[in-house]
Amino acid sequence: MTVFASLDSLRAACIDLPSGSNDSSIAVAERQDQLTKPPGSLGRLEALVGWLARWQERPMPRLDRVDIVVFAGNHGVVAQGVSPYPAAVTSQMVANFERGDAAINQIAAVATARLRVVPMTLDVPTADFTVAPALDEAGFLAAVNLGADVVVPGLDLLCLGEMGIGNTTAAAALCAALFGRGGARWAGRGTGLDAAGVLHKAAVVDAALLLHRGLMDDPLQIARALGGRELAAIFGAVVAARHNRVPVLLDGFVCTAAAAPLARLTQGGLDHAVLAHLSAEAGHRALAAALGLTPLLSFDMRLGEASGAALAVPILRAALACHTGMATFADAGVSDRA
Amino acid sequence: MTVFASLDSLRAACIDLPSGSNDSSIAVAERQDQLTKPPGSLGRLEALVGWLARWQERPMPRLDRVDIVVFAGNHGVVAQGVSPYPAAVTSQMVANFERGDAAINQIAAVATARLRVVPMTLDVPTADFTVAPALDEAGFLAAVNLGADVVVPGLDLLCLGEMGIGNTTAAAALCAALFGRGGARWAGRGTGLDAAGVLHKAAVVDAALLLHRGLMDDPLQIARALGGRELAAIFGAVVAARHNRVPVLLDGFVCTAAAAPLARLTQGGLDHAVLAHLSAEAGHRALAAALGLTPLLSFDMRLGEASGAALAVPILRAALACHTGMATFADAGVSDRA
Repeated sequence: MTVFASLDSLRAACIDLPSGSNDSSIAVAERQDQLTKPPGSLGRLEALVGWLARWQERPMPRLDRVDIVVFAGNHGVVAQGVSPYPAAVTSQMVANFERGDAAINQIAAVATARLRVVPMTLDVPTADFTVAPALDEAGFLAAVNLGADVVVPGLDLLCLGEMGIGNTTAAAALCAALFGRGGARWAGRGTGLDAAGVLHKAAVVDAALLLHRGLMDDPLQIARALGGRELAAIFGAVVAARHNRVPVLLDGFVCTAAAAPLARLTQGGLDHAVLAHLSAEAGHRALAAALGLTPLLSFDMRLGEASGAALAVPILRAALACHTGMATFADAGVSDRA
Repeated sequence: MTVFASLDSLRAACIDLPSGSNDSSIAVAERQDQLTKPPGSLGRLEALVGWLARWQERPMPRLDRVDIVVFAGNHGVVAQGVSPYPAAVTSQMVANFERGDAAINQIAAVATARLRVVPMTLDVPTADFTVAPALDEAGFLAAVNLGADVVVPGLDLLCLGEMGIGNTTAAAALCAALFGRGGARWAGRGTGLDAAGVLHKAAVVDAALLLHRGLMDDPLQIARALGGRELAAIFGAVVAARHNRVPVLLDGFVCTAAAAPLARLTQGGLDHAVLAHLSAEAGHRALAAALGLTPLLSFDMRLGEASGAALAVPILRAALACHTGMATFADAGVSDRA
């Protein structure tokens, strides 16, 4: 739907962002105050409906079509021994998604959301970014555009997630490049490293930062050099969603890191996104804080696959159902406060 | 289903509590470690399935029948001016529930749970507990038994909530009596008091504590003198649920306060209950901490009606769906860690 023909046009799209409909979120707040409950007593649920309204640009938002998209990629940096699982697991897990047998399949069913899995050239991993940029510009743009493609007409909410052995290392490198403080601040256990493994992962990140130090002032070049295809796709989907009135639920550490360059390019760039779940992965809390994101849920999950985002969908459905389905004080004949 | 013939038999039931099935929760943990995800990566979702298994006493728990029960009561203490809403709102809101027009109706529908509303002699409020005990022993037992009655055969999960103008004052009084630190520690804004109103509410609680100081060493007498019918019913439902293998989701401040006497009577008395949502009501955080309960959700809601409990039901459904629906590493042909 949205195509970025060059890095320059992508950059322009990242800077010239729509600001949503203030009128729509005000309309939500006005209706909330008439519903049969003490004012403000639904707390964050009320704010979530206002957020949906602002970014859908509808005074009465809807959640008729909710898509969960899981992008999968492979990473050359696994050659550095940064994961306890072999890279083959990425495509094995894609097959598991396609059979309906993974965690995200079950959570998507509870959320009554559509699940789409997008494997990205799994047989050709990105370059090992301790040796060369993960992607060249053409490869990066292709991945960004594949991500933007998932933002289809009629979509009301987009839940983003990923699968890719090695991608918490890419996410840690991205965070270190965007927010500083070195690999040790952002490297975590991933799928289950021990303490020595985490130290090694941090050293791998630091080596990559040194190699690519010439790119550190440009968030797009950072995303290209240190990310990976599934991270670039998430980035493209987040940008396209903003331009097409689709609110976004972000999943865990990798997904949030993939979206982070947009916030570095433009203040408020992630205002159309809500962080669904605070991951147990070490760097996620610091990343959420750096981005000013307050997670909806915090269940010590660290799975990816959009599992945290999908888990939050029923919360949004409940918030919207209250907004659209409750009676007003006047309709219900309930006495308002004295 | 469970009937308490006297305060003594209720007390005995509160002390001789079943401890759940350790074997069932172990079976859950063993299966979780074989599912296609890094071990432990579903975090609290895994623990929740173990909790369901322990208290349902089933190695493969189920959520086929989930009931949400909202007890409604009126309170003599409203004569002291502790709420900005008139007492008539309690029955008006019951009618609103019965028409399907309140917040809980919408959230229950999203949770695919059955909603039951139990109005409790709304035309005869309890006594003003600044003057006399809220209930006599017969009235207290009747309310406890009405609560116990909702624990029907075949129930897999019970979500408890309440509606009652004035009942955050009763809850604050209960907490002050059970945990000390005076009315000021536990009195909050309720449906929307201002700062002066909260101070007055705290003074009302302190007056009640002084009047009933002779009862303060008995959690059951505290529940009788300072609670109310809907609080007593919640207490009865929580006790009956423990004896009938039904896990419980507790809602906000009033619901948690109503259940608290069981934890004061017996260590671990609320182990079969999970706190669904941390309310914005002032005393709830301290109460949760005093009881050792870690809330699932924290959305600054302060509505009651079981709204927070119902909101957490899809989280439990997702946790269970992952447990029952995911493939194992062996089934899926996914490589386990090296």
